[in-house]
Amino acid sequence: MKNTAILLISCPDQKGLVATIAEFLFRHDANILHADQHQDSELGLFLMRVEWDLQGFNLSTNDFETLFAPIVEKFSMHWSLALSSYRPKVAIFVSRYDHCLADLLYRHQAGELNCEIPLIISNHSDTKWLADAYGIPFQHIPVHKDAKQEAEDMQVALLHHHHIDLIVLARYMQVLSPDFIRHYPSRIINIHHSFLPAFNGAKPYHRAFERGVKLIGATSHYVTEILDDGPIIEQDVTRISHRDAIENLIQRGSDLEKVVLSRAVRWHIENRILLYANKTVVFD
Amino acid sequence: MKNTAILLISCPDQKGLVATIAEFLFRHDANILHADQHQDSELGLFLMRVEWDLQGFNLSTNDFETLFAPIVEKFSMHWSLALSSYRPKVAIFVSRYDHCLADLLYRHQAGELNCEIPLIISNHSDTKWLADAYGIPFQHIPVHKDAKQEAEDMQVALLHHHHIDLIVLARYMQVLSPDFIRHYPSRIINIHHSFLPAFNGAKPYHRAFERGVKLIGATSHYVTEILDDGPIIEQDVTRISHRDAIENLIQRGSDLEKVVLSRAVRWHIENRILLYANKTVVFD
Amino acid sequence: MKNTAILLISCPDQKGLVATIAEFLFRHDANILHADQHQDSELGLFLMRVEWDLQGFNLSTNDFETLFAPIVEKFSMHWSLALSSYRPKVAIFVSRYDHCLADLLYRHQAGELNCEIPLIISNHSDTKWLADAYGIPFQHIPVHKDAKQEAEDMQVALLHHHHIDLIVLARYMQVLSPDFIRHYPSRIINIHHSFLPAFNGAKPYHRAFERGVKLIGATSHYVTEILDDGPIIEQDVTRISHRDAIENLIQRGSDLEKVVLSRAVRWHIENRILLYANKTVVFD
Amino acid sequence: MKNTAILLISCPDQKGLVATIAEFLFRHDANILHADQHQDSELGLFLMRVEWDLQGFNLSTNDFETLFAPIVEKFSMHWSLALSSYRPKVAIFVSRYDHCLADLLYRHQAGELNCEIPLIISNHSDTKWLADAYGIPFQHIPVHKDAKQEAEDMQVALLHHHHIDLIVLARYMQVLSPDFIRHYPSRIINIHHSFLPAFNGAKPYHRAFERGVKLIGATSHYVTEILDDGPIIEQDVTRISHRDAIENLIQRGSDLEKVVLSRAVRWHIENRILLYANKTVVFD
Repeated sequence: MKNTAILLISCPDQKGLVATIAEFLFRHDANILHADQHQDSELGLFLMRVEWDLQGFNLSTNDFETLFAPIVEKFSMHWSLALSSYRPKVAIFVSRYDHCLADLLYRHQAGELNCEIPLIISNHSDTKWLADAYGIPFQHIPVHKDAKQEAEDMQVALLHHHHIDLIVLARYMQVLSPDFIRHYPSRIINIHHSFLPAFNGAKPYHRAFERGVKLIGATSHYVTEILDDGPIIEQDVTRISHRDAIENLIQRGSDLEKVVLSRAVRWHIENRILLYANKTVVFD
Repeated sequence: MKNTAILLISCPDQKGLVATIAEFLFRHDANILHADQHQDSELGLFLMRVEWDLQGFNLSTNDFETLFAPIVEKFSMHWSLALSSYRPKVAIFVSRYDHCLADLLYRHQAGELNCEIPLIISNHSDTKWLADAYGIPFQHIPVHKDAKQEAEDMQVALLHHHHIDLIVLARYMQVLSPDFIRHYPSRIINIHHSFLPAFNGAKPYHRAFERGVKLIGATSHYVTEILDDGPIIEQDVTRISHRDAIENLIQRGSDLEKVVLSRAVRWHIENRILLYANKTVVFD
Repeated sequence: MKNTAILLISCPDQKGLVATIAEFLFRHDANILHADQHQDSELGLFLMRVEWDLQGFNLSTNDFETLFAPIVEKFSMHWSLALSSYRPKVAIFVSRYDHCLADLLYRHQAGELNCEIPLIISNHSDTKWLADAYGIPFQHIPVHKDAKQEAEDMQVALLHHHHIDLIVLARYMQVLSPDFIRHYPSRIINIHHSFLPAFNGAKPYHRAFERGVKLIGATSHYVTEILDDGPIIEQDVTRISHRDAIENLIQRGSDLEKVVLSRAVRWHIENRILLYANKTVVFD
Repeated sequence: MKNTAILLISCPDQKGLVATIAEFLFRHDANILHADQHQDSELGLFLMRVEWDLQGFNLSTNDFETLFAPIVEKFSMHWSLALSSYRPKVAIFVSRYDHCLADLLYRHQAGELNCEIPLIISNHSDTKWLADAYGIPFQHIPVHKDAKQEAEDMQVALLHHHHIDLIVLARYMQVLSPDFIRHYPSRIINIHHSFLPAFNGAKPYHRAFERGVKLIGATSHYVTEILDDGPIIEQDVTRISHRDAIENLIQRGSDLEKVVLSRAVRWHIENRILLYANKTVVFD
């Protein structure tokens, strides 16, 4: 795998943006591997992702910041620079349903997810065997109704200790407090087992069954303080029929959840996602 | 095309149902072409569709009713018998968007829809050219805010005059009154341009765009007195991305709407749909 | 889970078939849970699957055979009777790619596959850790070019020893000999990583990439003596674009393979598949 | 609709390409609306599509060519410049199946296809009524086995007379001669009613039925001298089951064909397609 840098940019759309950025990278001998941009014409917004090979690039990360600063200022850019050599640290939260956890652990082990997973946190101990099978530290932190704050304090302490970059809620059945969420803005990914905004909240498969929909879905999204309302990263659906009882919806939906969550995690880790207006742009 | 009879049955589930019905048909020399059944174990409900070749069948429709009556009574059946030789009479309601109308007229002309279309009603005259091209009578009935009742009276008079069996709302942008709907229970099919129950009501593509969903959908359903809440017949979705502006959603969605509406109309015409608990069973 | 019996039937289509079977089951107090049938009008073939609750059923399996025999003879039926209480014994063959194996083991452990897995056979030892994690016996049987027969002899001995009912080739990269296949007619399921009949044989992802297809697929099928030509059980596809390099095809395809193979295995185990004319009927 | 220019480029990949092109456009005050690029790392190829608003752009088309020439030479570019104000002239070839023709004519009339259609050519007269309904000139040119050359000569004369840019084979059931094809390299789009490369050649639905596939497909592609082997532009599939007879496959497939062909035509017209290595890049 190549050692690359990924630059993510968002700023007001103006003439000369691409020329300026491309010229800057060319001047420093960047060999561009991928570049993609998006313009939201209604909001007058410019978004860009550009990835280049670090071999031959003649700037250190520190120098990059210094030399790129005038461009940043001129175009009022929000920007971030990531290196593919840095493997982000991901914590997985899980309750009893273990299909998403098993899927993420397998993908991580198989090299599909370029991250470290130093921590699994669960309010139950049911999934410890999976953590053990894949050699990932497992923390059982029960969440009692009247001691939720204490549980979250313990969680946050562990997350800080492990320098966690991203939290993945792999069917974690507890609602996180606004305080907790504010610690990790746009860095908590949840999987919801419906095609949002349909059936947000509790028991979506049961409600899908009752409503008689012909397709069921799953949605991965960033967690914000409003339940099931954060920016959607990925969605998918599968066809069902009257022959499918609720247990079938749950079983078929679990296959969707796995794929939809794992894609979101991978895209986040690969720095493919830009956020604006409570939406995501996913550069593929 | 074969001359067939289609029997639709729903009743409380009991032992002996299939044996009784199959034996009855066998005794009268029915050559069964298709048979499908469904049991809802929670509600204890039995639903069946059976289609047989009328060639060789030794009962007239009238005799059928008489001789089948004891079975109906014994099992407390709801039932209906349809003949494939009868082409139901369909009225299409349309406003300005004409893609669903054009699609239905083409399919009808091509022999995909085994029905008659004696009537198109529109609150605008824009689509008259299409009706003319396919040789279907077109009635322009403007709907003024303060004279909606009068418009509906005219519509109902026309529908009665033409002995209409099914009304198809092919992007008809007026809300029908409860009175109107009660005239045609489970006999009005609407196309809604979202994946219901998400984005029910007005401007679903705009709201889908704002919410940042990754798939858009369309839903065909029977019209009930509660807006966009009737039994769902068919749904489908298509993938979109941040590159799709609202106009693209509308254009891509229109392809979904055409297919999703035409399937619902065909299934209704072919007597494939059974209703219960505000849901549909579609026997394919 | 209910204790049920599943009857699979295929025979020449004749009047009175359904009536006769339904009457027989009714007479013996069967509470039918699911029944589905299919008629191939061109071949004049009748296929049926019927499942009933054994609670209340007044025949033993032995008596069933005796009493059902006259019906079998009259209609020239092929038939089989399976009990849901019997968990078929499945052997998984695997080489180095482990995604399908990991997926099947997880599903088995999670209760999605109602079978026993007493045996994993591999020509490599790479996947032993997975077998160990799930507590399944693992046999490493290397296959040398000049000693293939010996390897197959060892495999067959193990399969017989474990009374294996079904063999699943979970990306097993060796071609089985006709002799081997004849031991397990219609009881070996393979996953091929293309949308068959396109790209049968070796390196389908590379050939799909070269041909520039816009969708890639996976196919699960029964193994026959002609490579990649057996009856297809399930297929699925996913959209790709010019942005996807071969490694992406392989990664995205692996998600298809898992789902497409696991569905085939589940349907086989649940006695949902009937075979005719080198095709499958899958009763859902 | 904005008045825009679209520049398509392909050349060997080199550093500085994007910077040079972006700087050139910026220098001449281009307001870039969309830009997308692709690199084939194996072939070392760079492909780009960039679209800008002509309002404010300070170069005429002629001046563009002159001033862009040094860049073209430096990077050994293949390039083309198209103006959205030019509506390409499209001829549709059709035989008896009229669903694709009806679909294209409707889309054209509805403004989905930004082209002119001055000519429909058919070897039958069945579809004349459709051409008349949409007011498009229709030429009936029968193709007799022993006078194919004469028919093609007449076709080519008509195509030249109308200055046709693109030929769309909308289920035209005649094989075009290599001579004919050479007149319109990469400018003839065909719809094939299978998921290529599966079932190329005749009667694909029948062969799909016989093989027992679980999905059927359609493929739009550029026509080359080898039958069904040209660069694929778009493909899609739909699920079928054992319940679908061949007529159903044909009917369900026709819905695929319409969508898959119309997308290809639109993308070609909107200058979104680049060709290399017998493949297409479709910039969306």
